[in-house]
Amino acid sequence: MKWAKRIGNLGTETAFAVSADAKAWAEKGHDVFPFHLGDMNIRTPLNIIEAGHQAMLDGKTGYGPAPGIPELRAALAEDVGRARGLAFAAENVSVQPGGKPSIGKWLMALMEEGDEVLYPNPGYPIYESQIEYLGGVAVPYGYVPTDSGFTINREQVEAAITPRTRLIFYNNGQNPIGAESDDEEMQWLADLAQKHDLQVFSDEPYFDIRYAGKSKSIASLPGMQERTLIAYTFSKKYAMTGWRVGGALGPQPLIDVFNKLNVNYESCTATFIQHAAVEALQGDQSGYQSIIQILQERRDVLVDLLNSIEGVSVYRAPVTFYLFADVTGVYQRKNYASQADLRQEALKQTGVSFCSRSHFGKPLPNEDRVFIRFAYSGIDVDRIQAGIGKLKAFWES
Amino acid sequence: MKWAKRIGNLGTETAFAVSADAKAWAEKGHDVFPFHLGDMNIRTPLNIIEAGHQAMLDGKTGYGPAPGIPELRAALAEDVGRARGLAFAAENVSVQPGGKPSIGKWLMALMEEGDEVLYPNPGYPIYESQIEYLGGVAVPYGYVPTDSGFTINREQVEAAITPRTRLIFYNNGQNPIGAESDDEEMQWLADLAQKHDLQVFSDEPYFDIRYAGKSKSIASLPGMQERTLIAYTFSKKYAMTGWRVGGALGPQPLIDVFNKLNVNYESCTATFIQHAAVEALQGDQSGYQSIIQILQERRDVLVDLLNSIEGVSVYRAPVTFYLFADVTGVYQRKNYASQADLRQEALKQTGVSFCSRSHFGKPLPNEDRVFIRFAYSGIDVDRIQAGIGKLKAFWES
Repeated sequence: MKWAKRIGNLGTETAFAVSADAKAWAEKGHDVFPFHLGDMNIRTPLNIIEAGHQAMLDGKTGYGPAPGIPELRAALAEDVGRARGLAFAAENVSVQPGGKPSIGKWLMALMEEGDEVLYPNPGYPIYESQIEYLGGVAVPYGYVPTDSGFTINREQVEAAITPRTRLIFYNNGQNPIGAESDDEEMQWLADLAQKHDLQVFSDEPYFDIRYAGKSKSIASLPGMQERTLIAYTFSKKYAMTGWRVGGALGPQPLIDVFNKLNVNYESCTATFIQHAAVEALQGDQSGYQSIIQILQERRDVLVDLLNSIEGVSVYRAPVTFYLFADVTGVYQRKNYASQADLRQEALKQTGVSFCSRSHFGKPLPNEDRVFIRFAYSGIDVDRIQAGIGKLKAFWES
Repeated sequence: MKWAKRIGNLGTETAFAVSADAKAWAEKGHDVFPFHLGDMNIRTPLNIIEAGHQAMLDGKTGYGPAPGIPELRAALAEDVGRARGLAFAAENVSVQPGGKPSIGKWLMALMEEGDEVLYPNPGYPIYESQIEYLGGVAVPYGYVPTDSGFTINREQVEAAITPRTRLIFYNNGQNPIGAESDDEEMQWLADLAQKHDLQVFSDEPYFDIRYAGKSKSIASLPGMQERTLIAYTFSKKYAMTGWRVGGALGPQPLIDVFNKLNVNYESCTATFIQHAAVEALQGDQSGYQSIIQILQERRDVLVDLLNSIEGVSVYRAPVTFYLFADVTGVYQRKNYASQADLRQEALKQTGVSFCSRSHFGKPLPNEDRVFIRFAYSGIDVDRIQAGIGKLKAFWES
């Protein structure tokens, strides 16, 4: 069979290889501590499950409109808009089967072959995969570690812009590093987008996964709503990763194109799931509050344990459920030859499984520190304590 | 906002305009008889709903593997294979969010820009839309009415093949015309595919929607399994159109590419829905049998009523839930200027809403008869009787 050329440019999530390693190790009878997962071991709140069940019983088992059911489009416009200080109408919303589908659709709508697209690296690997798959030029920008987290490498961004640069991916509340912009950085990015007439993809899956402070969307800055597509998802906020429901919010002409792509790809997002999503937004929020409490407890335990390890340093990220830990000290002390060695030895000696920086894009020039990502969405506090205890003993040995 | 060029080639399902007309007419207080829908007014069988609910309660609310959960891949391999006399392993199955997503993925995997792709016309509009959107050349082939249904226009297919022809869409149990190949026609097509080294997309949503005889897949003919992708869906068989779950079955290298596309587009099909789909295949089949009984009763009532109208002739199609009625006599007697006039006058005078031939592709040369499509999946027997009674009175007036 001969593949179309475009398939040669298609990437994947290499973190799946980490999952496979962890699974294989567990199947040999070893105790594995899963810090590699972006998934959650928390069940969806019961009121959302029951709303989905009731919708099935009510016969919401047929097709819905391609743009989404009107109730959910209105609810998303209201809820996402209110949280960001923006006015959206239902016509600014295209329901999607998750947050991810908006990535490809946005590029399909706006990116011509040969256009240059800025994307964060380390970052979610599907940005780069879809840019290259669809014939664009993927141009990475990085982050710089600071005393209190990470900042965007502005010089790198500014130097990378050419007359062919048309689009930029921005993931505030960043996977894998847990960074977020302060007001000044976000304004700098907004100014840059306007100066160079860039369209912005604001990927906001972790907007509501925060433990202090208040989230802000770049779309809410002056002049930005008309050039920004917000990718919203129910996955993290309501522990609904496996439901596959989210929404794209943006200027109506762009949303109309998304809707036409919906007709061509998935017809619609599952109908009763959309009804459950309305309940998620408008019903009892105690499930969401409980999810945040659980995650915050895990974060605090994990940050303190990691920082107690000689040669490990990590920032108490106020957003996301990821910690991007600097393990340069361990890497040097143990004299590892590669990040893969560090990762694989940790798994074999302690059962602790995590992703390394290389699972989120090819390292950029001048990265001289070694980082790994701990996700705490899929592991309970007692298991965090047991696993990191073993890791500390091994890394300090 | 400036769209990427590819968006200019993106089509849609123009039948949505018919739904919009019907809805607008109903909202003015008129009684509408919906024969335009490809959707079903039958709720999903309860055992499937309850399996989905139980899976949610059991916490199957997180991500599943991109290729699908192992239980569903195995169940589809077994069930789809057995019904077609084919051996499939789980590795030959990629779970999809519906039947439709396989169309785009198959073209993405196999079609180079400029390749010519044969597709049925009248036919499902997304074939043509996706071929052209992805840079291919869409080459239509038609059907010829016979005394007992329709046959593929073989001369047209053979004359259309060039050295650039690489792919063919085949929809046996055809939407909109309800045709299916006899053994001899299917063998002719299989020989043609092998002679010209064509890959075949066998779209089989109506394989199990039949009232007499036995369905057959072109993949089961010698030499065909290795060049055929079967698109399976739960939508029609189990009245699950709104659940968005189906599967692609084919050679493993092609399925591996589908799985990589799943990673890039939807991550996975909703997890608890996949568990419900296992119940659909392996649980009590009385729901399916009841769906077939209901549809068969509707078909028989509708065929008899339509054939009682002066100037209307329709074949009792043993597959699908569509009837493609020849209304040339009415068209001429009423002296309509266009199919749109015929359709819109029927809606306004009688409330009967249907799609016409033009909603399934641009008419081919030498089409001298006028056809319209009646779907009976979304309307009960008493409403069929009432609606077609009015239509008969009007058309014979």
